[in-house]
Amino acid sequence: MIITISREFGSGGRELGKRLSDVLKHPCYDKEIIQTIAERHGFDEQYVSHVSEKILQATYPLTIGHRFTMAPSPIAKQAVAIAAEQQKIIENFAKQDDCILIGRCADVIVKEYHPFNIFVYADMDTKRKRCIERAPKGEHLTPTELERKIREIDKERAKHREFYIGAKENTRSNYHLCINTSGIEIKKIVPVLAEYIKVWFEIRAKNKTNI
Amino acid sequence: MIITISREFGSGGRELGKRLSDVLKHPCYDKEIIQTIAERHGFDEQYVSHVSEKILQATYPLTIGHRFTMAPSPIAKQAVAIAAEQQKIIENFAKQDDCILIGRCADVIVKEYHPFNIFVYADMDTKRKRCIERAPKGEHLTPTELERKIREIDKERAKHREFYIGAKENTRSNYHLCINTSGIEIKKIVPVLAEYIKVWFEIRAKNKTNI
Repeated sequence: MIITISREFGSGGRELGKRLSDVLKHPCYDKEIIQTIAERHGFDEQYVSHVSEKILQATYPLTIGHRFTMAPSPIAKQAVAIAAEQQKIIENFAKQDDCILIGRCADVIVKEYHPFNIFVYADMDTKRKRCIERAPKGEHLTPTELERKIREIDKERAKHREFYIGAKENTRSNYHLCINTSGIEIKKIVPVLAEYIKVWFEIRAKNKTNI
Repeated sequence: MIITISREFGSGGRELGKRLSDVLKHPCYDKEIIQTIAERHGFDEQYVSHVSEKILQATYPLTIGHRFTMAPSPIAKQAVAIAAEQQKIIENFAKQDDCILIGRCADVIVKEYHPFNIFVYADMDTKRKRCIERAPKGEHLTPTELERKIREIDKERAKHREFYIGAKENTRSNYHLCINTSGIEIKKIVPVLAEYIKVWFEIRAKNKTNI
């Protein structure tokens, strides 16, 4: 039972993953993935996080699948190394046991393990409210700045995703369930969502089909 | 508890609606809407169905919200009359009592009743298989022809929708849950889906917010 969660920034995807983890008793991997990478390679965690979400987009076309005229920079080399390592670690989590994987294109990476893929989204008001409640200390963005930040992060994530799936995505087709968390408390929908997921895996096991 | 179901052609949206109706004990309106229109106005049912999905697209911009240089044709007038009537009937269903409304942009039409909006979709294999199982007597389309038919109907529905929401839509934002029915038996997910919907309405009632 591998579950992946993709999400819009601020929609509560991570909270949903953690709470599903509590109900289903499967481990949930999010920042832990990055920490593992950081520890293994001695990279600075902040740097790894930055690289894997952002620099990679600029780096990939230069180094993978394209003939290039310039030698890749050391930063580009490192970014690709981190991405490859990240992919390996995510695959290992899926190989080891049932788990919940948040973000990082895990649904694409562990596709052959036939995960249940969730997409979590919400309206801008809900996302803004959530971001304000969870803002890092000292961050005081105006509503407009916050909205810009949310859109920018989602744009980065979408680009990052594009490299993994090799095309602009048809959002819904990769997911088995898309959940709008606008105006609802995530903790209240998690128990019944966990039931839905269990039923889905039962059907699949019975039909012996991989969806 | 008003529930609307929008869907890709062949994804099982109607079956899902009918089964939800059995579990939740709310009436479900689909073709009935058209029949009611047909009966009230003495239009031929086949004609009404055709008009409300197809001709309306061509008619609307000529007659609503635009200054026009030509007088509308009798067919155009009738198409708009049917659309207006259809809208009234759908609103009346929502006004009367809890119900499930399938297709026909009901989510937009009954927006002020704060419905729970579902979108049902599936991969092409699943949709083709479902269409073959339910094909009208004498219809023998090749897989390619069937796929073309499915895409065409979805395209028509999308255009029809465009007139109601006044813009190309961001598919997911109008829906509270998007359900991928690829490779699963709809009857098996309906009981837990009904529970999800109940919880959603409970949260909304408690929060006194309209989502």
